[in-house]
Amino acid sequence: MDYIKKYIEDNKERFFEELFGLIRIPSISSLSEHKADMVKCAEYWKESILKAGADKAEVMPTDGNPVVYGEKIIDPSLPTVIVYAHYDVMPVDPIDKWHTKPFEPVIKDGKIWARGADDDKGQGFMHAKAFELMVKTNTLPCNVKFMIEGEEEIGSPSLGKWCKEHKDLLKGDIILVSDTSMIAADVPSITTGLRGLSYWEVEVTGPDHDLHSGLFGGAVANPINVLCDMIAQMQDKDSKITVPGFYDDVLEVSAEERKLLAKKPFNEEEYKKAINVKALKGEKGYTTPERTGIRPSFDVCGIWGGYTGEGAKTVLPSKAYAKISTRLVPNQDNVKISKLFKEYFESIAPDYVKVVVTPLHGGQGYVCPIDFPAYKAAEKAYEHVYGKQPIPVRSGGSIPIISTFEEVLGIKSVLMGFGLEADAIHSPNENYPVENFLKGIETIPMFYKHFAELSNKTA
Amino acid sequence: MDYIKKYIEDNKERFFEELFGLIRIPSISSLSEHKADMVKCAEYWKESILKAGADKAEVMPTDGNPVVYGEKIIDPSLPTVIVYAHYDVMPVDPIDKWHTKPFEPVIKDGKIWARGADDDKGQGFMHAKAFELMVKTNTLPCNVKFMIEGEEEIGSPSLGKWCKEHKDLLKGDIILVSDTSMIAADVPSITTGLRGLSYWEVEVTGPDHDLHSGLFGGAVANPINVLCDMIAQMQDKDSKITVPGFYDDVLEVSAEERKLLAKKPFNEEEYKKAINVKALKGEKGYTTPERTGIRPSFDVCGIWGGYTGEGAKTVLPSKAYAKISTRLVPNQDNVKISKLFKEYFESIAPDYVKVVVTPLHGGQGYVCPIDFPAYKAAEKAYEHVYGKQPIPVRSGGSIPIISTFEEVLGIKSVLMGFGLEADAIHSPNENYPVENFLKGIETIPMFYKHFAELSNKTA
Repeated sequence: MDYIKKYIEDNKERFFEELFGLIRIPSISSLSEHKADMVKCAEYWKESILKAGADKAEVMPTDGNPVVYGEKIIDPSLPTVIVYAHYDVMPVDPIDKWHTKPFEPVIKDGKIWARGADDDKGQGFMHAKAFELMVKTNTLPCNVKFMIEGEEEIGSPSLGKWCKEHKDLLKGDIILVSDTSMIAADVPSITTGLRGLSYWEVEVTGPDHDLHSGLFGGAVANPINVLCDMIAQMQDKDSKITVPGFYDDVLEVSAEERKLLAKKPFNEEEYKKAINVKALKGEKGYTTPERTGIRPSFDVCGIWGGYTGEGAKTVLPSKAYAKISTRLVPNQDNVKISKLFKEYFESIAPDYVKVVVTPLHGGQGYVCPIDFPAYKAAEKAYEHVYGKQPIPVRSGGSIPIISTFEEVLGIKSVLMGFGLEADAIHSPNENYPVENFLKGIETIPMFYKHFAELSNKTA
Repeated sequence: MDYIKKYIEDNKERFFEELFGLIRIPSISSLSEHKADMVKCAEYWKESILKAGADKAEVMPTDGNPVVYGEKIIDPSLPTVIVYAHYDVMPVDPIDKWHTKPFEPVIKDGKIWARGADDDKGQGFMHAKAFELMVKTNTLPCNVKFMIEGEEEIGSPSLGKWCKEHKDLLKGDIILVSDTSMIAADVPSITTGLRGLSYWEVEVTGPDHDLHSGLFGGAVANPINVLCDMIAQMQDKDSKITVPGFYDDVLEVSAEERKLLAKKPFNEEEYKKAINVKALKGEKGYTTPERTGIRPSFDVCGIWGGYTGEGAKTVLPSKAYAKISTRLVPNQDNVKISKLFKEYFESIAPDYVKVVVTPLHGGQGYVCPIDFPAYKAAEKAYEHVYGKQPIPVRSGGSIPIISTFEEVLGIKSVLMGFGLEADAIHSPNENYPVENFLKGIETIPMFYKHFAELSNKTA
């Protein structure tokens, strides 16, 4: 397959330039001030798909940010691969922690540094370039459809409905996604499990206006103190979540399967060193990889209330807020969990405060079987490029739309991730190694080749 | 004393204009961007004292914001009243809760609306105008010294040292302060007790950078969750503060004195209605007035960490912060409490986080004896203007500098406050009734008169 390596080598500088153009558009989906950037980013993707060789591509409206759809149908009897990616990115705060400007990509130390460098502009764009490669070298063995959305980072609120409305357009055999990570640059892996998610904002109100903490302190409940108490009550001393019924639908993973999962290399000392903590904390009775792979979790993603400026202001504030999320495992229903949490959190609110719980978003978990043509094709593709069989991994992350695809379109997804844990996605100094970007472009055409062969639909 | 009423009636429009000029300077001491305003405000006070009739006045440097000192010595054998006030104000956030602009004072519904309208520009300026009244009507019976500082709202960090350096300048018989409130517009009271204060900022660090809450959630301690746990541990179910040794120096108030304090009118239903809460919360075994008057309290004045913007961002943040304060009762030493808190808070930090506790400011409590000439003079002054004997009250607030005055200068203070609880000091929509402002100016000259008589120093 020397033509693949050669095409990449001959064109890689242009690939970077094109990717950088995509990254420079600050398409932060959670901030409404970036609405215009979302459309701009979608247009950029459309043009990229067309230039790469699609028969057609368009920016299609949804209830939220538009979806980019494009396709190349070479023969209806061949299998069809639907490429899913997202063009939206996370916010960039805390901005003072970045060493470079988040939307001005640079290559340094063999890595691309920028918001979206990995998640998911870098990983998504590999598919545009791999597609171009197959078209220009006349080696495309499948029909291809692109579905690129702009709301993944806010839980894909519009894409499920859009899929329902465009079922005919979205006929296909597999959804191919690069939005996950691999174990290490030389240890390929395929994500076979994703956690679900429920996310809420809570508001605790004490007095209806800020009070003087001297004149009222000690006599009137402080909503920050109360919120802290309530959050503290959400987990017991074994780090089990205390919401009644929370674990009811969690499938306990068998001892045998836990043994298999333990084969994934894991060095606890290195793990701690990488994030600079002296000790880890998690649910009693489970290892660190299990705590993120097969168990749910509870995190306060943000908290605020009272005086947060410079110096010392004494105040007994009126309100306190938190953004709270749980990660769920397959078989836990996020809608049910969302309801259970809301009911419980409201039920433990003392009568000296008012509590409002607003569900913000959610998604189901997902499991991909490893005895299935698309998984096998992905396995062979990695083997070819990396010289090693990839390891199946259950990720702690969530891509809620993946389970929606299965539900609405009846199509499974295969998660060929090329990111690394060190890529700092969602954080300051997000980056993506150049090598991973290029190897991704090299691996993807091999997936198409093997998928076409294994699907028994080869022309 | 008709000349007093007449002078006020003839000049009140000018009094408002002059006060408004003072209020319009946004002298927020806790925000360094207002440094220039502090000097401007001090200059305004200096000019006001000179115009009112002082022999001299000057803006004197300190380690922080300047102090305005001015004096009129009519006869060294007469008693000397030192007027203390502060020209700095609290920050104005949350700014969106204000119905008017905080630094554009307006009179509406019989009240002056602005930051500082009461605390302490409105109350402080009454002394400038009462002084002017006595000078212009040739009725000043005492020597007067003004000491107006610009750091009260941040705990007066420089004034103690400045007092030590200017002991000779500050010789006097009583410190007169209007920076507290009275029970109601028709129920005069004198504050005889103030709570002390200790204030800290705490920083909790988990991982050294923000993490993806899916990939790491459940395996790595979240500093917000940990901070909430730690704050929850600071009080037990009876709302007692759990810091070991915290209550050691609290003087239990006798049953007899508690009976006396209970004479202050208090209506719990009205109190709850005024702040719109269904229930109150405080230390078990004490009434609401006791919880603020004779017992210490624990309040989180601010908390922040993680994602606090619009929408849902999933993140396992690196850091969480809180601003924490305790109000202390007389005999509790704030330096000792500050140390005890820091030690305890650090001791309960689990090994999966790092905790830094930074003391921000503190002050001692204060008690004023009620059998003492200045108290008696104040009592008579209120009686004359309000037709009622004022009630002695232990306030929950803190004016740390009051105990410093006693310690450094050996001079007691008398707290003739004319504010109301409804004045919303430290909060949005701070206000000060016009009537209280004018009655304050009417009452103060009577204090001077009676104080001169009772001091046995009358010329």
